[in-house]
Amino acid sequence: MKPELIFLHSAMNPEGISLSSEGTLDWFAARQEAHRFKLEQISFLEMKKWEFDPVSGNLCHESGKFFSIEGVRVQTNWGNIHEWEQPIINQPEIGFLGFITKKVDGVLQFLVQAKMEPGNINMIQLAPTLQATRSNFSRVHQGKSPPYLEYFMDRSNSIVLVDSLQSEQGARFLRKRNRNIIIEVDDDIPVFDDYCWMTLGQILQTMRHDNIVNMDARSVISCIPYCETEDIPIGQSAFGQSLLHSLDLRSQVQNSNEEIISWFTEQKFKYDLNVERIPLNIVRGWERTETEIRHQSGKYFSVIACRVEADCREVFSWTQPLVKTYQQGLIVFIVKEFFGVLHFLVQAKVEPGNFDVVEMAPTVQCITGSYEAASREERPPFIDYVLNARSEQVRFDTLQSEEGGRFYREENRNLIVMAEENFSEDIPDNFIWMTAGQLKEFIKYNNFVNVQARCLLSSISFV
Amino acid sequence: MKPELIFLHSAMNPEGISLSSEGTLDWFAARQEAHRFKLEQISFLEMKKWEFDPVSGNLCHESGKFFSIEGVRVQTNWGNIHEWEQPIINQPEIGFLGFITKKVDGVLQFLVQAKMEPGNINMIQLAPTLQATRSNFSRVHQGKSPPYLEYFMDRSNSIVLVDSLQSEQGARFLRKRNRNIIIEVDDDIPVFDDYCWMTLGQILQTMRHDNIVNMDARSVISCIPYCETEDIPIGQSAFGQSLLHSLDLRSQVQNSNEEIISWFTEQKFKYDLNVERIPLNIVRGWERTETEIRHQSGKYFSVIACRVEADCREVFSWTQPLVKTYQQGLIVFIVKEFFGVLHFLVQAKVEPGNFDVVEMAPTVQCITGSYEAASREERPPFIDYVLNARSEQVRFDTLQSEEGGRFYREENRNLIVMAEENFSEDIPDNFIWMTAGQLKEFIKYNNFVNVQARCLLSSISFV
Repeated sequence: MKPELIFLHSAMNPEGISLSSEGTLDWFAARQEAHRFKLEQISFLEMKKWEFDPVSGNLCHESGKFFSIEGVRVQTNWGNIHEWEQPIINQPEIGFLGFITKKVDGVLQFLVQAKMEPGNINMIQLAPTLQATRSNFSRVHQGKSPPYLEYFMDRSNSIVLVDSLQSEQGARFLRKRNRNIIIEVDDDIPVFDDYCWMTLGQILQTMRHDNIVNMDARSVISCIPYCETEDIPIGQSAFGQSLLHSLDLRSQVQNSNEEIISWFTEQKFKYDLNVERIPLNIVRGWERTETEIRHQSGKYFSVIACRVEADCREVFSWTQPLVKTYQQGLIVFIVKEFFGVLHFLVQAKVEPGNFDVVEMAPTVQCITGSYEAASREERPPFIDYVLNARSEQVRFDTLQSEEGGRFYREENRNLIVMAEENFSEDIPDNFIWMTAGQLKEFIKYNNFVNVQARCLLSSISFV
Repeated sequence: MKPELIFLHSAMNPEGISLSSEGTLDWFAARQEAHRFKLEQISFLEMKKWEFDPVSGNLCHESGKFFSIEGVRVQTNWGNIHEWEQPIINQPEIGFLGFITKKVDGVLQFLVQAKMEPGNINMIQLAPTLQATRSNFSRVHQGKSPPYLEYFMDRSNSIVLVDSLQSEQGARFLRKRNRNIIIEVDDDIPVFDDYCWMTLGQILQTMRHDNIVNMDARSVISCIPYCETEDIPIGQSAFGQSLLHSLDLRSQVQNSNEEIISWFTEQKFKYDLNVERIPLNIVRGWERTETEIRHQSGKYFSVIACRVEADCREVFSWTQPLVKTYQQGLIVFIVKEFFGVLHFLVQAKVEPGNFDVVEMAPTVQCITGSYEAASREERPPFIDYVLNARSEQVRFDTLQSEEGGRFYREENRNLIVMAEENFSEDIPDNFIWMTAGQLKEFIKYNNFVNVQARCLLSSISFV
């Protein structure tokens, strides 16, 4: 059977082998009960093994590994602001974000981890089987090796179903990428505490709840391709059917992949992005106090220091910096049917940490601060359409978390808004209509679709 | 008709509208006769508008545009040499390499330019309709605007057939890319002196001769997709048929695109490439004389200064630096049939100027110096197989030039070598078998296939 069908079959199955369709939330709650964590904000001076470099002022780990907080000077002709400086997370290592899967009675099961990250809302969220940076698995912190790592390092006994490099937040990370991978094993494997088999359908259903499935899991799931088949009874809403058509690469499209590539080439041709790494201590407009690195205006985000105690990680207690955003973000795809096939309004967006100038982003991706109190011209395109949408237009509306290993309780409102019949055909040059299947094709060839678009796409369930 | 068929049809037609199948070489010779050029090597002091920056020692144009010669410090765990410094060409602007095409009596014609570049062998070579950096067309040098630029800037009256960003030599350029584009016009357009309509078949035939079709034209042509059809009588060799199967995306393959992406992901995961820009005047092992920047060993390449006089360019006389390589290069694809479909042995190769660590390169890509006098372990993989190939195994063998705007008479021997029946199935981890169609699919999504592999692929004619 083609992987697209194997995945579809699992997505259509809300009953797992160890948990019923309702059981996932109970299991998640039980894992939360089972563990004790403590997180407290501390001063930078109280951090262990982290320090500000005396010359550059960069905030680094003593091993030189993990990540560091550095500065960048940005120049671009995109958007309203053409020059600025900011702190950025530099994490040049490529890590693994990986699911182990296994067919049981013909249905693909995903080995899900209930994983603690210090910045998580609820402390624990559902994560891929393995989530490990190279520093993790080369054991720079001298803790235990992450469980299941060996299945990803030696893949001679497994089938690779998905395996590509994907970017993370370009506004916060300097060209960070992770290896998003799904492998299928045939042998029995041990299921440790905090791990559980779930069908893809169970994970997708869980995403309808706020802040349970973590960003890394959503990112990996976004790489999954689907195709339609007549063998599987659908029995779903008109919206679900339109979405499933949209996920199928054989469906009719507004713009061919070649036209999308040409549009994207034009965006890279038109927009400049010049990012220069600079020492953190000369970043203009930002200041360092005993407890945070913050913008003088009090806007955007700050870098804080935390002490974490956990009973279920490789290391039981540690300190680390986290990025704290002041405002909730808004991540929205406006969707519209063409030829009965759902299309997504995609934006070419420049962000300083982008690997290659622009990435494909959701229709709206901003923090609340970018439209509150902004003049009409400065408001992001389509923001008013989205904020004024009638409730019948809203097809998906949840809060989803950013990566709790780097971000302090950052959540974004994830929305899917159906365009009305009279939605203008006249869209700005840096927007284009694409099907979900096309977005997934560009995800496959990587370095095209940003993490916000991927995660929002992954969370729309056609079940 | 699908673009793949339109291109195939043109490739199968050796008779153009203005030139017969033999006429292309005569026209080329006549264009050479028609112009006068003078190139002389000068000292750096004699250069006009170019100077060494007093602080960094970088060689720059006074406008800050065009390109500059800077330094890089390279660290990698790929290959035999893990750390070095070298001069590199920094040209951050994306330029156009574009063909205008037009259907005449149903056959697509390409508007080819006989273009002078200072470093060209023969001074003139066949080039795309437009070859222009942003500095060219923003007229930094205050010359004339390049002919036909307007057709590429405003594409509202044309169809875009090919349009993607493609990399150039990663050993010489720091992340340089150009926009490779083919547009089709419907209206009549003027054909200026030094321009001529040719079918794709005529261009492909011309590539069988040494140093006539320039690198830029070969790069654009490499982006052209093909598919098979029963409508067009083939009447070609068994090799040509196997190649045509190989170009068709529907053919059977050794590795699926997903498997290739996973293999490529593993290469990027495994290999580190750390490239730090440094001032030219601190590059270790390199020295500057009055006339060249060269390696102390006399190996690799040097940067020289030239004065050019030409009667057919936007500016009639100018000086500029050129990169001069000491040795001929060798660019080889080993090919082998699987299921009657030709497969290419592709190498994942790290080069310092690569945009993203590794690119897909030919089986062998090196300068003569890398294997002469090298120990057995240090010789590039497959070099001995290629050098010892019997003449019946060689399917293509010509000398092709690198870009004459930056390189001084640099030519590479381009070879296609058929593997024998007993060719080992055991290939190194950073090699993989791909069809020509798959290579073209990865070219389409850009940033995968390097310029050497693209150009060699484009020059293999199935006619």
